[in-house]
Amino acid sequence: MERQTPTRRQLLNAIGLIGGTSAVYAMMTTFGHAEETRFPGPPKLDGARKGASVIVLGAGLAGMLAAYELEKAGYKVTILEYQGRAGGRNWSLHGGDTYTELGGATQKVTFAKGNYLNPGPWRIPYHHRTLLHYCKAFGVELEPFIQFNHNGFVHNIDAFGGKPQRFKALAADFEGNVAELLSKSINQKTLDTQLTPEDLERLKEALRNWGMLDGDMRYTKNLRSSSHRGYDLAPGGGVPAAPRPSDLFPLDDVLKSGVWNQMALYMNDEMQTTMFQPKGGMDMIGKGFAKQVGHLVTYNAKVTKLMQDKSGVAVTYTDMKKGVTATANADFCVCTIPLTVLSQIQTNLPDKKQRAIRAVPYSNSVKIGLEMRRRFWEEDAHIYGGHSFTSQEISQISYPNSNFFGDGPAVLLGAYSSGPAAYRLAGMTPEERIEAALAQGSVFHPESYRKEFVSGASVAWSRVPWVMGCCARWNEDTRREHYQELVAVEDRTVLAGEHASYVGCWMEGSLLSSLDAITRLHQRALEA
Amino acid sequence: MERQTPTRRQLLNAIGLIGGTSAVYAMMTTFGHAEETRFPGPPKLDGARKGASVIVLGAGLAGMLAAYELEKAGYKVTILEYQGRAGGRNWSLHGGDTYTELGGATQKVTFAKGNYLNPGPWRIPYHHRTLLHYCKAFGVELEPFIQFNHNGFVHNIDAFGGKPQRFKALAADFEGNVAELLSKSINQKTLDTQLTPEDLERLKEALRNWGMLDGDMRYTKNLRSSSHRGYDLAPGGGVPAAPRPSDLFPLDDVLKSGVWNQMALYMNDEMQTTMFQPKGGMDMIGKGFAKQVGHLVTYNAKVTKLMQDKSGVAVTYTDMKKGVTATANADFCVCTIPLTVLSQIQTNLPDKKQRAIRAVPYSNSVKIGLEMRRRFWEEDAHIYGGHSFTSQEISQISYPNSNFFGDGPAVLLGAYSSGPAAYRLAGMTPEERIEAALAQGSVFHPESYRKEFVSGASVAWSRVPWVMGCCARWNEDTRREHYQELVAVEDRTVLAGEHASYVGCWMEGSLLSSLDAITRLHQRALEA
Repeated sequence: MERQTPTRRQLLNAIGLIGGTSAVYAMMTTFGHAEETRFPGPPKLDGARKGASVIVLGAGLAGMLAAYELEKAGYKVTILEYQGRAGGRNWSLHGGDTYTELGGATQKVTFAKGNYLNPGPWRIPYHHRTLLHYCKAFGVELEPFIQFNHNGFVHNIDAFGGKPQRFKALAADFEGNVAELLSKSINQKTLDTQLTPEDLERLKEALRNWGMLDGDMRYTKNLRSSSHRGYDLAPGGGVPAAPRPSDLFPLDDVLKSGVWNQMALYMNDEMQTTMFQPKGGMDMIGKGFAKQVGHLVTYNAKVTKLMQDKSGVAVTYTDMKKGVTATANADFCVCTIPLTVLSQIQTNLPDKKQRAIRAVPYSNSVKIGLEMRRRFWEEDAHIYGGHSFTSQEISQISYPNSNFFGDGPAVLLGAYSSGPAAYRLAGMTPEERIEAALAQGSVFHPESYRKEFVSGASVAWSRVPWVMGCCARWNEDTRREHYQELVAVEDRTVLAGEHASYVGCWMEGSLLSSLDAITRLHQRALEA
Repeated sequence: MERQTPTRRQLLNAIGLIGGTSAVYAMMTTFGHAEETRFPGPPKLDGARKGASVIVLGAGLAGMLAAYELEKAGYKVTILEYQGRAGGRNWSLHGGDTYTELGGATQKVTFAKGNYLNPGPWRIPYHHRTLLHYCKAFGVELEPFIQFNHNGFVHNIDAFGGKPQRFKALAADFEGNVAELLSKSINQKTLDTQLTPEDLERLKEALRNWGMLDGDMRYTKNLRSSSHRGYDLAPGGGVPAAPRPSDLFPLDDVLKSGVWNQMALYMNDEMQTTMFQPKGGMDMIGKGFAKQVGHLVTYNAKVTKLMQDKSGVAVTYTDMKKGVTATANADFCVCTIPLTVLSQIQTNLPDKKQRAIRAVPYSNSVKIGLEMRRRFWEEDAHIYGGHSFTSQEISQISYPNSNFFGDGPAVLLGAYSSGPAAYRLAGMTPEERIEAALAQGSVFHPESYRKEFVSGASVAWSRVPWVMGCCARWNEDTRREHYQELVAVEDRTVLAGEHASYVGCWMEGSLLSSLDAITRLHQRALEA
């Protein structure tokens, strides 16, 4: 270890020298405490009164997690679920499935074995620790979800004459131009900044290397810029092996492409690598949870009334298979019914709680799955997973992240729309949606898209009977006015779900909400 | 489809309007022809003379591919290989393996079953089409290699008092500051640029959204910047759910961290996502190739002399198991022996070819594998695959990309050094290298690194007996003076390997070189 010692000493010296100022130590303390997750581990719900009962409304992830932890804590738990399956928005459409949307259109999914569309959640960030914890606990196998693919396309009808370009080339040119422009400002000494001359030199060095600028601090056509944006002719082997640099894009088109939207998206906390998906479809998670608590669920139970007070809860529901109505009584209730539906159920919750329930609009979104005969995006376009983005209504297409290099059919996500575009797609018949997805998605893979198409399936969340929307869309005003009221325990009842969280529209939000809700409900039970 | 029609028409109109200028059409033509691969598919070697023989020197990937395609074309092929295994630098060390380096130090690898270190190649870019083609053809299963991980660390002893920071936070702050500074220049109207006022507005909009600037075009502490760099307290569920923004780093430290090195690395053509690795270790590729041509290989054959002229080739070699020397004759020779070794073998190649062989220095590099008792980087630090970088000699550590969330021991890449640092590590004993890797790598995971350590293995390429270096390091001068001479067919002999390519140090380079070499050799054979 003799040779290593000086290096370690140098390191320690370096730390000592810089760390000598109290400012730096203060800084290190501050920096050390970022909390990327609210999950402290499974809840500790000790001391439950023997025989105390809880009725859980909804067998989505929030409801099933509540049931799982409450049962473990000693409560007598039952779950009422509207659908014939558990999982809620954690859902996959496989070949053989049939789905009827509001309005009556029925789709029979004919995907090949192993192929699927995840209409709802489809990717898991590395910092969604609650979900990752329970996936492991419940034996749900995960595989990487390729979120970031430099080789995907970005298409904007206003840029490049409507021709899609590779993300890597657009991003490289954006960075190169930004670096060159800022470097010019530094040289003109017009930059209004507090930076020291040393830091300005460091910044120039950074811009030169990050932006692939040449010796004159210009972003130009050469092998250096091509090593980021792609070559006109890639390096090869043997005699004709030298690479040829590629032309830069006009900055005007780069800006019109809006590639900075994708660059920012990839830096978003919830979109950063590494992401995961369950092997076999997102519904493997719902199935994993259901393995734990499925025995507690009454399926096909449509809740019509929720009455509660300081002494207990009475839930009236219709067994839709048998056509009979019943009332279930319990000491406590965890209600995970989406607000869109809950707002239509008769309750005796106080007015301010009911106002909160009605205050939150739900987003719509539309996903379309397209089964293709072969993986032309891999074989011809060299795209493995990830996304291609467009300014058209489909918004993006996404490539499957399992069975890379596989033969046989595979399912592309052919649209992931929200806002007005999603409402327009939702207004179409399922067949029209597929046609729209094919027409618009063809821009990326014109030679194969229609030719290799086999079949499709779509889900417009505004037409999903059991949720009538995608997820809760809070804004600053509704948060201030209604959020704490919505999540507060009311006598014997507490609401949970992604709508009762700040991680809206994510499974993690529903789980964190559930854990917090049952912890508070348990506290209330101990006081009761 | 009625609702869709206007959108398609709008799209076509938009294309028509913009595409009306001939400049744009010219541009589209140019942009359409980028060639990211030199692989046109397997070679077509028709018309080989029946009975013509080829001797291939070296059973690395270049040699095995040459043998495979030449045998398919009808040649009688034999391979001489120095080692007792095929694959060459395509190599993995598994538990149970023993490796003796130059200098005599022997390591017995004790990794648990399924764990391995890839001393040589370890990742495959999506555009290495030759390699991907033959992996599929030879049944080598691939899985994603997580190259880009926003949550990995960047450590520079000169920044942050020696404390590592997450890549995401450093990159977000770099981008935010660059965006703010450039935006200021635009507002001061001092920017010397050809941009139109419209494009300047677009640029400002881009900077605001890409750099997460606030309404005043400043990069400040708020939930917006935290959504890229990470929160002080992440969004949660239930009552205590509101997120808390994180402090920004001082720009001085961000610049000193050198994070732009990593940002640029991730944009490098050969480092862009999606990357792959074989399931079970990189050596699965060598084994896949060997399944095809293993029957042609004479192992433990040390080539000592290569004589050739216009009529044929004579290769003298020592069978190191039997201790006997023999001479093999053939009509043609494909020599894939690394230049470090070939330069020491007696040949009658012309002086200028021998000068070319001696002209190219080889890089060194050192890799160290550390088996850890558990995946603390996943469980505690929430890092799944990818890298953490440091200014110390180990340069980086890399996290395993298979069996995510697994229990039991896993192997980290504990060092990937080159240049002077690699020579210093190579000068140590294997035990000292492990200690250096533990000492330096602890900076990332101080609480677990030594505690969870089980065993290690290292390969210093300058000490690998059969290559004595890592790979050929061409520069502009040596390329100009020697490259074409090196790759030219000489009478009956042609050289192949990564050293005979512009894709040096990559398996793809050796394969492309091999295909080009045998195509030219076959041409020569047809003329002979």
